[in-house]
Amino acid sequence: MTTPSRRDLANAIRFLAIDAVQAANSGHPGMPMGMADIAEVLWNDYLSHNPNNPNWLNRDRFVLSNGHGSMLQYALLHLAGYDLAIDELKNFRQLESKTPGHPENFMTSGIETTTGPLGQGFANAVGMALAEKLLAQRFNQSGFDVIDNRTWVFMGDGCLMEGISHEAASLAGTWGLNKLVAFWDDNKISIDGNTDGWFTDDTPARFEAYGWNVVRGVNGHDSEEIKTAIDTALKSADKPTLICCRTTIGFGSPGKAGKESSHGAPLGKDEVVATREALNWPHAPFEIPEAIYDGWRVRSNGQGREDQWNQLFASYQRKHPELAAELLRRARNELPEGFIAAADAYIAKLQAEGPVVASRKASQMAIEAFAPLLPELIGGSADLAHSNLTLWKGSKSVASDDPNANYVYYGVREFAMTAISNGLGLHECFIPYDATFLVFSDYARNAVRMSALMGAHAIHVYTHDSIGLGEDGPTHQPIEHMASLRYIPHNDLWRPCDAVESAVSWKQAIVRNDGPSCLIFSRQNLAHQARSEQQVADIARGGYVLKDSAGAPEIILIATGSEVGLAMQAAEKLGDKVRVVSMPSTNVFDRQDADYRESVLPKACRKRVAIEAGVTDFWRKYVGLDGAVIGIDSFGASAPAEKLFPHFGFTVEHVVEAAKSL
Amino acid sequence: MTTPSRRDLANAIRFLAIDAVQAANSGHPGMPMGMADIAEVLWNDYLSHNPNNPNWLNRDRFVLSNGHGSMLQYALLHLAGYDLAIDELKNFRQLESKTPGHPENFMTSGIETTTGPLGQGFANAVGMALAEKLLAQRFNQSGFDVIDNRTWVFMGDGCLMEGISHEAASLAGTWGLNKLVAFWDDNKISIDGNTDGWFTDDTPARFEAYGWNVVRGVNGHDSEEIKTAIDTALKSADKPTLICCRTTIGFGSPGKAGKESSHGAPLGKDEVVATREALNWPHAPFEIPEAIYDGWRVRSNGQGREDQWNQLFASYQRKHPELAAELLRRARNELPEGFIAAADAYIAKLQAEGPVVASRKASQMAIEAFAPLLPELIGGSADLAHSNLTLWKGSKSVASDDPNANYVYYGVREFAMTAISNGLGLHECFIPYDATFLVFSDYARNAVRMSALMGAHAIHVYTHDSIGLGEDGPTHQPIEHMASLRYIPHNDLWRPCDAVESAVSWKQAIVRNDGPSCLIFSRQNLAHQARSEQQVADIARGGYVLKDSAGAPEIILIATGSEVGLAMQAAEKLGDKVRVVSMPSTNVFDRQDADYRESVLPKACRKRVAIEAGVTDFWRKYVGLDGAVIGIDSFGASAPAEKLFPHFGFTVEHVVEAAKSL
Repeated sequence: MTTPSRRDLANAIRFLAIDAVQAANSGHPGMPMGMADIAEVLWNDYLSHNPNNPNWLNRDRFVLSNGHGSMLQYALLHLAGYDLAIDELKNFRQLESKTPGHPENFMTSGIETTTGPLGQGFANAVGMALAEKLLAQRFNQSGFDVIDNRTWVFMGDGCLMEGISHEAASLAGTWGLNKLVAFWDDNKISIDGNTDGWFTDDTPARFEAYGWNVVRGVNGHDSEEIKTAIDTALKSADKPTLICCRTTIGFGSPGKAGKESSHGAPLGKDEVVATREALNWPHAPFEIPEAIYDGWRVRSNGQGREDQWNQLFASYQRKHPELAAELLRRARNELPEGFIAAADAYIAKLQAEGPVVASRKASQMAIEAFAPLLPELIGGSADLAHSNLTLWKGSKSVASDDPNANYVYYGVREFAMTAISNGLGLHECFIPYDATFLVFSDYARNAVRMSALMGAHAIHVYTHDSIGLGEDGPTHQPIEHMASLRYIPHNDLWRPCDAVESAVSWKQAIVRNDGPSCLIFSRQNLAHQARSEQQVADIARGGYVLKDSAGAPEIILIATGSEVGLAMQAAEKLGDKVRVVSMPSTNVFDRQDADYRESVLPKACRKRVAIEAGVTDFWRKYVGLDGAVIGIDSFGASAPAEKLFPHFGFTVEHVVEAAKSL
Repeated sequence: MTTPSRRDLANAIRFLAIDAVQAANSGHPGMPMGMADIAEVLWNDYLSHNPNNPNWLNRDRFVLSNGHGSMLQYALLHLAGYDLAIDELKNFRQLESKTPGHPENFMTSGIETTTGPLGQGFANAVGMALAEKLLAQRFNQSGFDVIDNRTWVFMGDGCLMEGISHEAASLAGTWGLNKLVAFWDDNKISIDGNTDGWFTDDTPARFEAYGWNVVRGVNGHDSEEIKTAIDTALKSADKPTLICCRTTIGFGSPGKAGKESSHGAPLGKDEVVATREALNWPHAPFEIPEAIYDGWRVRSNGQGREDQWNQLFASYQRKHPELAAELLRRARNELPEGFIAAADAYIAKLQAEGPVVASRKASQMAIEAFAPLLPELIGGSADLAHSNLTLWKGSKSVASDDPNANYVYYGVREFAMTAISNGLGLHECFIPYDATFLVFSDYARNAVRMSALMGAHAIHVYTHDSIGLGEDGPTHQPIEHMASLRYIPHNDLWRPCDAVESAVSWKQAIVRNDGPSCLIFSRQNLAHQARSEQQVADIARGGYVLKDSAGAPEIILIATGSEVGLAMQAAEKLGDKVRVVSMPSTNVFDRQDADYRESVLPKACRKRVAIEAGVTDFWRKYVGLDGAVIGIDSFGASAPAEKLFPHFGFTVEHVVEAAKSL
């Protein structure tokens, strides 16, 4: 083989995709075939990365928002020399391979974020580009641009149809994220066929309306046009760029190019043969000629790039040792020395002082106490800052160029907010929190799920946690939300009962760096609960005995949040054989060892009453068929909170009655 | 008082809002004060409605997407003469009043849809405008435009920031819904303050990019400019119209106009006094001078409009008796005569024939069987028609002007799809179904909740219901979704185990006209189950004994969907003391009388095993603390389905073992 052409290099992607999908008898060849030429130019001529070190801090981030085209990314990683052997590609979509159906950050080195649910990768990328902007503001010094990477994202028509593309693009435009470059795979095909019938937006005009730099009408199969477009993007000083690439889905397939049939199914044996002929690719499946490998590796001198940066960083360390140390600490996702002790001291102080506040206020107090110690904490709310109480004294808008910028005014965009949090949480150096009313966690729900699936360190703050919200009524009153969020695997939900538990939840959410936490807070004031030192320590176990019975319990009351106070009052009336268990996090409690769980909820005691202002059935896991649950299984109503609680049966009398009836 | 000016008429809205919020000590005065002039012009000069008959079929639909401004709508209903007494306004936001915090269609006559969750009212309105288009196509005849109403929607900055505004506006543009007119309350204020920091879109350009007719820069406090803008909208032949109204939030309040402080809290006693002076409104709270009432009623001659239409319709009935009868039947939300019998016959035939198909295929077969009988059935999918199997032989795109248009290509827009379904379902004459993969119900979740809260007759079809989806992997495999959807109050979820149960679920979802149903279908083939006639009838009760034990059961296996076959196989191995309960709908089963529930799940039998490929804790409500659950509490994985089921423990051996261990 002579020196391979750019098209030859791109065809290596195409045939790895074609052959892997064929071998798996499942997958999406059309997109990799359509975007191969763009990917080849981007990865070989522009992407600043080091395949030997996928975790290089200043690497460019590459996000495949149209994640069904995963084979494009696996081919790229393989060809560029990442740790992804050809055998993994042969095992595409097989159990425990590094090449699952959609790119998964926790399975494959070099994958920045898990994509597939459309539009979210794009929003993650906005979060990553924001991370870059903020790190540059904080750490770059004259002559030392130690942070200056770019974020590149591929997106398809599906990503652009999704509402989250609107929310994320709008924010990226407002923030002027000029190092963000998105490539639109404009192939006019989605699963139902030609998009003329359902996607008639003037997308370039739409992105211009968001304040983006838009490069129109690029032939996505012409390397020179692609290069020119990228060069234009690189010149953008204050705007993100959308490069609109006209492509042919399934490019090269004589029978299926330009058709939906190439999108989500193997081309089929005969068509694979025909495509080999059409693209002049005589090589056997998974055989890549050395010249092709060489072509890829010669162009992408990743190690050189990182070496150069390491030199720069070494000088930076000498000149700015404290900044460098702080950056490295944050890059290791390591909390500052002394944070745990300070947090514990704050918690002990709260226990001693016993403030009676709404837990949303207690949340703000915790932020106020912890944030000065944590420059990595970056907060925000979906236009509810003064309701969610997410601002603290040191909050500075990320729209500014303040080196300490740390607060995001997300506007009314819950879904993008949460996906941007995921991008920040996956990026080194940040612990993001976002906030809205609990009921509107619905708007963001799949992004919360993605936090959990990806193990993103993200903190989702949800206030106004029940009918206690009051007059806004049932559209704004969560009922099923806590149970539903608890059911997301690997998600930790906390619903604290007072200021002390609120501070502990915040601490636990900050410490938990391999997954998300949902912190649920009340609108209304909550009583303070007395606790021993041991009880304070046990809050972190998710559930603990708040008030014990004399001797073995005859009745156990289990409650969370605003209903813990009610349980304590009811216990007073029920006499000294009653135990009260506060259960701020069922998720965390369920992970404790069997002995501890038995010590809190002894099997012998079946007279159990759970109390929570939400759906009752969730609690059957603790009270079984013999216990009782006081909760709400209908929608709420519009009225002052103090009218609603008795209306829906949250009274001492009702709890006492339920306990006695067992 | 002399003849009131337009401003006087609008001020009546303002002060009803100001005083009601003040009396409730809670609510949102700013928006009603800002949009009062627009509302006055629209309602008095354009809105075609009849306050004496809020259900007049050809009425214009008015939707307040920025529902927090509910007092605007209550004031309008009151002033225009709807059945909403001044005492109800005095009781704003109180328990069981007709004036809840946000407009609720089920509480207040004249409210078309429940709003508050931002952006959804706009999407509901798109659904209503689509309903109008389709009814006009189907029923209008030369000289008989019996359907020619408009849909008017008010929306704020919040609605426009939400992603759903993108999805819904894009579809409205594609469909050319020229009878849809949206008013943007462009007041530059959202809850976090001046929107400059987070909302910098060029909204007019954005809507032009969707193919809308945009009227820019209207002074929202100048009646003549508003009229001119609406007149322009009325001329639009093939595009929906956005009227961009510059307004001042809290208009008239000397201290709070133009400020966030007027948005979501009472103005305060002193400011109310100052506003009365500034607007020259000397009347006591809730006192509206007769001249003002007269001014409102003289302008809005609703009864006359309906009388005229009734005459037209009477002639139409004479000329086109069958069409008229059909329209009236559909308007009554009454199923065609014979539908139930035909459905039951189809179900009986399926039971006899016993096809072994994927339940998604069984769903398509049911649509194919029922849809020819139901012209009101309007289907669609979010770009997954050939995966969800939602097309049938009679499907015709709503983008066409075919009189039988009944299929919506929604594109990849799950949230707007579902909210548009809600709009269609709330509108007379339609039974909508929509579809996506079960995992992406997340994207639409709050709209599903709104279906249930509003009692909308909407059918949400979710296929690919478990790890049985296979290779696409954990991003696409639902785990917590069924449990979470079952927890939405008033929502009925069905997960049928074979073609027969699939057809029954469809029938029940069609019959249930006061709330939504979620129909959950498999990707993979499911075995057919033998049943007696009584068993077939009992499917509709949500849970029933599919295979009984000899004598009282010692063990009960409870399963749904694809796991019913597994339960049946395990029961074979476990011997004749085992009962198998198929539980396609826990929601429906829970509503059955206690005797029936006891007959299926006798209290005496505590050895119970639940089997479902989803989160286990949900099933504790049936198996208690003593039973076992076979399910999945982690995320799934990318692999062929036949590898995944055993990998996650769904084997006969495992079920047998679990049952024996009890």
